[in-house]
Amino acid sequence: MKNKVTRRDFALNLGMGGLGAVMLSGQNIIENPTISDNINHIGPKKGYTPHIGTLVSMLDWIRDTVFRYNSKLTIAQLDHLHDKDANTIGALIWHLAATEVIYQDITFDNLDDFSPANKEKWGVAMDLGEKARNEIKGNPLSFYRDMYEEVRKKTNEGLSKRDDNWLLSGETKDWNWNNYCKWFHVVEHYANHRGQITWQAKRLPV
Amino acid sequence: MKNKVTRRDFALNLGMGGLGAVMLSGQNIIENPTISDNINHIGPKKGYTPHIGTLVSMLDWIRDTVFRYNSKLTIAQLDHLHDKDANTIGALIWHLAATEVIYQDITFDNLDDFSPANKEKWGVAMDLGEKARNEIKGNPLSFYRDMYEEVRKKTNEGLSKRDDNWLLSGETKDWNWNNYCKWFHVVEHYANHRGQITWQAKRLPV
Repeated sequence: MKNKVTRRDFALNLGMGGLGAVMLSGQNIIENPTISDNINHIGPKKGYTPHIGTLVSMLDWIRDTVFRYNSKLTIAQLDHLHDKDANTIGALIWHLAATEVIYQDITFDNLDDFSPANKEKWGVAMDLGEKARNEIKGNPLSFYRDMYEEVRKKTNEGLSKRDDNWLLSGETKDWNWNNYCKWFHVVEHYANHRGQITWQAKRLPV
Repeated sequence: MKNKVTRRDFALNLGMGGLGAVMLSGQNIIENPTISDNINHIGPKKGYTPHIGTLVSMLDWIRDTVFRYNSKLTIAQLDHLHDKDANTIGALIWHLAATEVIYQDITFDNLDDFSPANKEKWGVAMDLGEKARNEIKGNPLSFYRDMYEEVRKKTNEGLSKRDDNWLLSGETKDWNWNNYCKWFHVVEHYANHRGQITWQAKRLPV
């Protein structure tokens, strides 16, 4: 819904005998109200089509909660293992960002998996488990904040080039999730593991 | 955005010399595409304004995952306590629905808390803790499925009477979340505790 035609445009078109042009025009006549920048105002943010702008709003809110709910964790706490089958809080935070990256590759570049370069960088965090338990350690919270900022930029760049038709479509015979479903899963996936982070953080050794 | 004015309406208005009426009309000229009923098609569902319809879509998807990810739990498993500070899976499932109910009361009826009747019915599950550990037991999964269906009906009834202007507004001096933020929190809150349910379910005694 990138075309915004105002009442004034109508008047000009009609004044120029452009009624025919207006009637045959492929343009949708749409008003696109946008919402303030306030993070707690969920809705269509400026610079995006309405549904994409709302998705951006939700992604910003949910990523922010990961740090807001866990803003004082030390490296030791981020790397603490609750039990032998658990994932550290640091690994879960990394896993969340990895999930957003894989959906960038899937929905922006039509890949089935990470790109090879991203697989190198994000594969361990994506898979979690023993390798992640061994390798993901020693990173302060600021490391993860910077990571999230980088991922956010890439997502917003990709979303800003696309429109609501793209977001509302994209399902295939093999996978009937539309693009909005794929990105909504990215959003709810943040909350899913954040709940596990909260649960484990409450039980950190004093 | 309940008013849908098509190009044909324009033609009629203009043919009748209604240009002035059109220009001065308060109506927004909007096309409201809706999306299929498929649960994995996130987007503006029929019967609602576009942003509200998308919220309904997200609520349906996320509530469904609570049961889809935990479809075989027995009463004993639903009532199992992982440790003395934990909440049973059954209590968490109830708590999720209670949260949706409190936001019905807050956003539909402008209350600060549950209505007195709802406080009776949902207060224990809302607060969790010791009282919930003592009282919430013995309910099969079907009990919770029925509960969710009832809550969903009430939410959809309330949302169907409202529009996107309502959804995108509603922030106050004391609480700067707009209504969409409040309802988005209901959505992400389902995922938050579902993550804890998954974590605990993996560790249920064999």
